[in-house]
Amino acid sequence: MSPERLARINAMLDNRQPDLSVYLEYMHKPHNLSAVIRTADAVGIPEVHATWLAEQSHISNHKASGSGQWVDIRTHKTTTEAVSHFRSQGMQVLATNLSDSAVDYREIDYTQPTVLMMGNERDGISQEALGLADQDIIVPMVGMVQSLNVSVAAALILYEAQRQRQGAQMYGQRRLDDAICQRHLFEGGHP
Amino acid sequence: MSPERLARINAMLDNRQPDLSVYLEYMHKPHNLSAVIRTADAVGIPEVHATWLAEQSHISNHKASGSGQWVDIRTHKTTTEAVSHFRSQGMQVLATNLSDSAVDYREIDYTQPTVLMMGNERDGISQEALGLADQDIIVPMVGMVQSLNVSVAAALILYEAQRQRQGAQMYGQRRLDDAICQRHLFEGGHP
Ligand SMILES: C[S@@+](CC[C@H](N)C(=O)[O-])C[C@H]1O[C@@H](n2cnc3c(N)ncnc32)[C@H](O)[C@@H]1O
Ligand SMILES: C[S@@+](CC[C@H](N)C(=O)[O-])C[C@H]1O[C@@H](n2cnc3c(N)ncnc32)[C@H](O)[C@@H]1O
Repeated sequence: MSPERLARINAMLDNRQPDLSVYLEYMHKPHNLSAVIRTADAVGIPEVHATWLAEQSHISNHKASGSGQWVDIRTHKTTTEAVSHFRSQGMQVLATNLSDSAVDYREIDYTQPTVLMMGNERDGISQEALGLADQDIIVPMVGMVQSLNVSVAAALILYEAQRQRQGAQMYGQRRLDDAICQRHLFEGGHP
Repeated sequence: MSPERLARINAMLDNRQPDLSVYLEYMHKPHNLSAVIRTADAVGIPEVHATWLAEQSHISNHKASGSGQWVDIRTHKTTTEAVSHFRSQGMQVLATNLSDSAVDYREIDYTQPTVLMMGNERDGISQEALGLADQDIIVPMVGMVQSLNVSVAAALILYEAQRQRQGAQMYGQRRLDDAICQRHLFEGGHP
């Protein structure tokens, strides 16, 4: 591996946020998954969580423009199973929801360990997810459409988290498990 | 038209920002166009500009999840033609560009009349666009992927513009041409 590539991978590892993640409920459009994974990589999320519509589980193998190697995708059977994993990590669980009672996404403290739950493009977030979440959040809209594209909504919230965490000096110091770092350094040298 | 719908359309019109726009260069993926148009509507952009790859001009008729009626799409033959239109409107012209010399998108003053130029998904922004722009801007990324999805990058910048304009009290007061308002009130009552 060249010294430049080694330095690039090490810098990426120093910026990874093990206590920030996103969960995609019943994903079914590969291009949205791909867009979310690129955004996750760009803000330093090491692992994305998902449940799949039964007939679509093949897209779990989808490669997102070269980020597949750098962002892990972890599949769950149900939202309840996914949320109990997030709870075991001590994360606050946020549900994006297009409702009047949802809070503006800019009011949340994302320096806490946080997972962001995104709903399915057609049906939105499930009642199961809403029941398990600590808080509903929304990206305000002043036009006539009822919703944003799911990868757009995820990116707006994740970049707000990135902004807050940068202000809190949470980037640039390694917090990722050493085993994961070693794997990336090894695989990144043998792509 | 019901009083509720009339009130909703009037509120939308009061939030329209005639001096904010986005220009999509050589668009070729309908789902990205659709996502950008939904975001444009959600931040109050009345008109989106585009050039098309020759074989793809049919997607100019694409409907973006119900927002097509509310956001106009204006086609140009070339970027040079598009930019001379923006200049005639007194807009600052920003080019998104994945280069080291590009400025962080959060450093720009979006309360000025502004158009944001987005590049093609495969080739990025053209040299033509870069030569005509006042400023290159970038959304910082701390991972390994080289770029964000184009509709994601557009949304992050447009919501930063929305945030600044909201702070400057630029929403909630009608600034859109009366003829356009009348058309929306008429068409919105006869969908
Ligand atoms: C296309 S939307 C779902 C629309 C669905 N018809 C509904 O009523 O919920 C897909 C997902 O994108 C996210 N989303 C879209 N717009 C959003 C917004 N303005 N605020 C927060 N999340 C949003 C949510 O996760 C939502 O479940
Ligand atoms: C997929 S990217 C183009 C990638 C292309 N290979 C290149 O090198 O430019 C498509 C468009 O999305 C926008 N974009 C993507 N990531 C961006 C970022 N981090 N900052 C600003 N614009 C970005 C730009 O308009 C870009 O032209």
